[in-house]
Amino acid sequence: MIKAGIIGATGYAGGELVRLLLGHKEAKIVWYGSRSYVERKYADIYQNMFQLVDDICQDDNMEAMAEQVDVIFTATPQGLCASLVKEEILHKVKIIDLSADFRIRDVSVYEKWYGMEHRAPQYMKEAVYGLCELNREAIKKARLIANPGCYPTCSFLSVYPLVKEGLIDPDTLIIDAKSGTSGAGRGAKVDNLFCEVNENIKAYGVTGHRHTPEIEEQLSLAAGKQVLINFTPHLVPMQRGILVTAYASLKKDISYEEVKAVYDRYYEKEYFVRVLPEDVCPQTRWVEGSNFVDVNFKIDPRTKRIIMMGAMDNLVKGAAGQAVQNMNLMFGVDEAEGLRMAPLFP
Amino acid sequence: MIKAGIIGATGYAGGELVRLLLGHKEAKIVWYGSRSYVERKYADIYQNMFQLVDDICQDDNMEAMAEQVDVIFTATPQGLCASLVKEEILHKVKIIDLSADFRIRDVSVYEKWYGMEHRAPQYMKEAVYGLCELNREAIKKARLIANPGCYPTCSFLSVYPLVKEGLIDPDTLIIDAKSGTSGAGRGAKVDNLFCEVNENIKAYGVTGHRHTPEIEEQLSLAAGKQVLINFTPHLVPMQRGILVTAYASLKKDISYEEVKAVYDRYYEKEYFVRVLPEDVCPQTRWVEGSNFVDVNFKIDPRTKRIIMMGAMDNLVKGAAGQAVQNMNLMFGVDEAEGLRMAPLFP
Amino acid sequence: MIKAGIIGATGYAGGELVRLLLGHKEAKIVWYGSRSYVERKYADIYQNMFQLVDDICQDDNMEAMAEQVDVIFTATPQGLCASLVKEEILHKVKIIDLSADFRIRDVSVYEKWYGMEHRAPQYMKEAVYGLCELNREAIKKARLIANPGCYPTCSFLSVYPLVKEGLIDPDTLIIDAKSGTSGAGRGAKVDNLFCEVNENIKAYGVTGHRHTPEIEEQLSLAAGKQVLINFTPHLVPMQRGILVTAYASLKKDISYEEVKAVYDRYYEKEYFVRVLPEDVCPQTRWVEGSNFVDVNFKIDPRTKRIIMMGAMDNLVKGAAGQAVQNMNLMFGVDEAEGLRMAPLFP
Amino acid sequence: MIKAGIIGATGYAGGELVRLLLGHKEAKIVWYGSRSYVERKYADIYQNMFQLVDDICQDDNMEAMAEQVDVIFTATPQGLCASLVKEEILHKVKIIDLSADFRIRDVSVYEKWYGMEHRAPQYMKEAVYGLCELNREAIKKARLIANPGCYPTCSFLSVYPLVKEGLIDPDTLIIDAKSGTSGAGRGAKVDNLFCEVNENIKAYGVTGHRHTPEIEEQLSLAAGKQVLINFTPHLVPMQRGILVTAYASLKKDISYEEVKAVYDRYYEKEYFVRVLPEDVCPQTRWVEGSNFVDVNFKIDPRTKRIIMMGAMDNLVKGAAGQAVQNMNLMFGVDEAEGLRMAPLFP
Repeated sequence: MIKAGIIGATGYAGGELVRLLLGHKEAKIVWYGSRSYVERKYADIYQNMFQLVDDICQDDNMEAMAEQVDVIFTATPQGLCASLVKEEILHKVKIIDLSADFRIRDVSVYEKWYGMEHRAPQYMKEAVYGLCELNREAIKKARLIANPGCYPTCSFLSVYPLVKEGLIDPDTLIIDAKSGTSGAGRGAKVDNLFCEVNENIKAYGVTGHRHTPEIEEQLSLAAGKQVLINFTPHLVPMQRGILVTAYASLKKDISYEEVKAVYDRYYEKEYFVRVLPEDVCPQTRWVEGSNFVDVNFKIDPRTKRIIMMGAMDNLVKGAAGQAVQNMNLMFGVDEAEGLRMAPLFP
Repeated sequence: MIKAGIIGATGYAGGELVRLLLGHKEAKIVWYGSRSYVERKYADIYQNMFQLVDDICQDDNMEAMAEQVDVIFTATPQGLCASLVKEEILHKVKIIDLSADFRIRDVSVYEKWYGMEHRAPQYMKEAVYGLCELNREAIKKARLIANPGCYPTCSFLSVYPLVKEGLIDPDTLIIDAKSGTSGAGRGAKVDNLFCEVNENIKAYGVTGHRHTPEIEEQLSLAAGKQVLINFTPHLVPMQRGILVTAYASLKKDISYEEVKAVYDRYYEKEYFVRVLPEDVCPQTRWVEGSNFVDVNFKIDPRTKRIIMMGAMDNLVKGAAGQAVQNMNLMFGVDEAEGLRMAPLFP
Repeated sequence: MIKAGIIGATGYAGGELVRLLLGHKEAKIVWYGSRSYVERKYADIYQNMFQLVDDICQDDNMEAMAEQVDVIFTATPQGLCASLVKEEILHKVKIIDLSADFRIRDVSVYEKWYGMEHRAPQYMKEAVYGLCELNREAIKKARLIANPGCYPTCSFLSVYPLVKEGLIDPDTLIIDAKSGTSGAGRGAKVDNLFCEVNENIKAYGVTGHRHTPEIEEQLSLAAGKQVLINFTPHLVPMQRGILVTAYASLKKDISYEEVKAVYDRYYEKEYFVRVLPEDVCPQTRWVEGSNFVDVNFKIDPRTKRIIMMGAMDNLVKGAAGQAVQNMNLMFGVDEAEGLRMAPLFP
Repeated sequence: MIKAGIIGATGYAGGELVRLLLGHKEAKIVWYGSRSYVERKYADIYQNMFQLVDDICQDDNMEAMAEQVDVIFTATPQGLCASLVKEEILHKVKIIDLSADFRIRDVSVYEKWYGMEHRAPQYMKEAVYGLCELNREAIKKARLIANPGCYPTCSFLSVYPLVKEGLIDPDTLIIDAKSGTSGAGRGAKVDNLFCEVNENIKAYGVTGHRHTPEIEEQLSLAAGKQVLINFTPHLVPMQRGILVTAYASLKKDISYEEVKAVYDRYYEKEYFVRVLPEDVCPQTRWVEGSNFVDVNFKIDPRTKRIIMMGAMDNLVKGAAGQAVQNMNLMFGVDEAEGLRMAPLFP
């Protein structure tokens, strides 16, 4: 049995980790960390867990936790994991960091986009970018996983095969993304009140969203050259779900069947990536609550562009589900254990 | 392995049955019945099931189905099950009817409230009212289950202990219920369009909703006398969830602790009924996607009334989940098999 | 031209006052008070007012304001108005208080339910309860108006004719109310985040909501005797709207036509109260954005009860609209000026 | 007093026309056309109009209507207006067609994208494209107005100044649009049910949406050359609102101030187009219920692209509001009459 500790168990991603690990046959949570609610019953905060979780919330003491657990999930704001991680901890436990601290290899890029000093740059090279479909073998051997951001996961998986195969011009890539509100976290902010979010859609972080360099770094690795993109996220009045609509110019005339064959080649063995049938657009409702990413594309012969689309649950494949998938790989468990639930509809 | 057939697999309750049975270790679906979509792939209609269900929809042929399955779920409009059921079918399979056809024992009451002739009155006595917490032993031996209505399940479980114990005057009972829109089904009606349901709340079926006699019959059995109530359902702009707020006069002065002890006595061994801590109100979000019913109460010493509350997912405990729970009982499987998922939040 | 000042102009009720007064031919706002946003442009906070309002937010200085305006609206939390009002201010301006400070005549009742000392009890008798349909003549002469609460307005207008005429037993009255989230205000609280409110319904303040004594006081005046009720509010995932469903026992057999005649008699000259046709239930979507209250009822001959229903926009007739209606009465302007907009649908 | 007739008065755009014209000082509706509800009271269908509209719905008889009205609004599916319009009608009344029948000048383009034969091609040249900010003078003299589509209005106004000034390369233009559900109309379709739309976002009509050639035609006129674009609409779980996010490559280095000056030059005299302050993104909630279009832009120096954004209420400026604006121009009334209401929030 894998013993897990969660730092930040009362945020939305932390809460989702709890839900998923409760249904996992080979893991159990032994430390519910939540600085805001220390000594309160976890089920008082997340009442869905009444009679399912009897534990009390504890402080974010990574050293003490490392004595009791096999794996630590940090579902906290940027900077916390980097400030706590050190060699003696990594000797004892594996860490899966759901924050952005180790997602970007270049310290200066991190510090520029995140506006803070990095407290543990010595681990930036060692940390493995935990996009399971991309880095499966490296993940199995890692001590420290940088669990990918929600937008980057959905964006990358939607466009990766065509970038990697050189079928699109990566300099023309534009990613227009739309997310439900759980991505903004459980902090009490006026902007996230029901009356502000409902009946509204807006772009935010235009030209400056922090997930941009993360997407660019992974795409650059795939393209074998530096890639700059436009990435624009939007806030949608729904709880869960990310939809990515990506545009790029095709490098040559290519048929639907040829592109489909490329997607199939990359993803047919990937349980969690579903390439939809022709002309069927991904929709967030069809993946809600599950670890699936649905992708598809449409060629526009008029403009010689291709539109690539992906839909995903931001709290599952975009956060907690991918973290569990990483844990499964790291501990030699069936990769889909605890993640086989079908999407919930309606 | 229990082989299951579903008539009406593409309605919302049918779709939920599919989701639950896919996660059930001892059952599998071998017949996806859907008159509207015969010969179409099930996953074309319910795209969440893409790559999870490869089956084709079939017609509602109960006789042919009875040759291939162990249990038939009818998730169809009133009247269909009664028009199909017969002795030679019941000799071969068990039937769990999610419609109202066998929920009421008195034919004349059924025909008055439902406005249609009953086609199989001979089974009204045999059919067992499938409220598992109430009729567990009878369900185990039944051939034909009348799966309870969504409102009756939530209403009954919220007030049952106090009615049974004679602590409230049943003639003063008023049940004000609120439901998400999935309860209205997947039919294409203007009234159920997004723009009609969103930003709106309304009462409907005031003094005349068909679930009224079903609730009254069960309460009358519990009270040992004829009970008439007011039951008012409301439509709320959400997908899933039923909340019941019930009011009744207390027959005598009684303390919180005494009432709590009664609820605990009735439900402490019931996995799916959770009696919440003092002053914590049931909320539908805390049970979404699960088979739980959360109940609680509040005494008003000023008016000498008690307010009883219950929250439930109308598609799970209010329909498909309870149907699976009934199946488990009928086939001697662990009652909670396939139903242990934690509620999804947010 | 009536010069108006608003204290609390950046809350939801304050924002609605601004919207309504912008469309009012005989009033203009000369003071936008907002302690939280002093010296910021009002339109930076409420961007809908970009290019419509150029003013800067000012502090809550009631004395300075009294020099510049004819009427002051206080759209602030309980206690503020009572702490500021004094004779020299009331000599200069009229005050319409949207908080609860002057709604209840009995200081001890106020202090018990609101849990705070009342700072200006000397005005509790003088203040007129500003339910225009009830106290029109007194309002015209008042200096200080207690603008009614949202729930009380909708509850009272729904049941008033039958209480006043003695057709129902007021001791059996149960009011089950449902409100959109704007009623909870614009404060940054976790409970009001989109992800907490959406896909959820809950009761709150059960047996203890502060609007209870306000409703009871007005009903007692109508009934000519002390009335105690059960009042249960619920939070619904919508922005605006209150629906009231009220239950009471009829004192005698009475027909639909007789009750309808009573409602018509009380309301046929009331522009803002619409008695709906038989069997048509009030719905919040049909009054959104307007000052209308839609009411109707249904007799249940089985239980000898009557169900009374009302729907209203909590920010208009439940707050800012009624405040403007009061202002119109106080200044001898056409009572419906600025309030004639048709409801917005969808 | 302008006498108006509406064909299709019970659709969402028709209903919005009724709301706006009720508040218009110089127009009144004398014919409520609705084939589906002939001889029923209009207020029975749109209950918000109870006691505000006493009229009965009539059939779509354009000839009879032309005898009684000064202007006919056709808020109907494609094809109807073209099948009814003829010279003797245009001699008597002005027509404002809210459908797409006369929006595109080239019959072959219309017939290709709409998949139907055009029944009145002789009027395609005469009809004036009713985008008031673009064609004000022509509209004043027109007999037949093609009221623009919702997406084209918002898309065009967001990008027009930069296309017209040649600051962006129109061949790189990509328009990613998001719309509330009222744009899909009031037809009873499963896809538009609450449970299908809520908690979901999807693209639709990818590479093939009918508004594409309309946008392209207007942009081509502005650019002085043939423009082909990618236009991708998305369905968002909200009632009203369109947000456009448009991407294009800048032809040269240009500063924020220079671009801002261009937008201001085009729009500073346009009451209904609001160019927002730097770094403030348009949001649909800030224009709801109003005729405003909020636009803004952001330059990305990294990719040398500009992101242009626009937000609008699809039923007002995107349909009924613009139709009234057109009517005002055609009849010499103040262009903003009946359209000055501030946006509703929340």
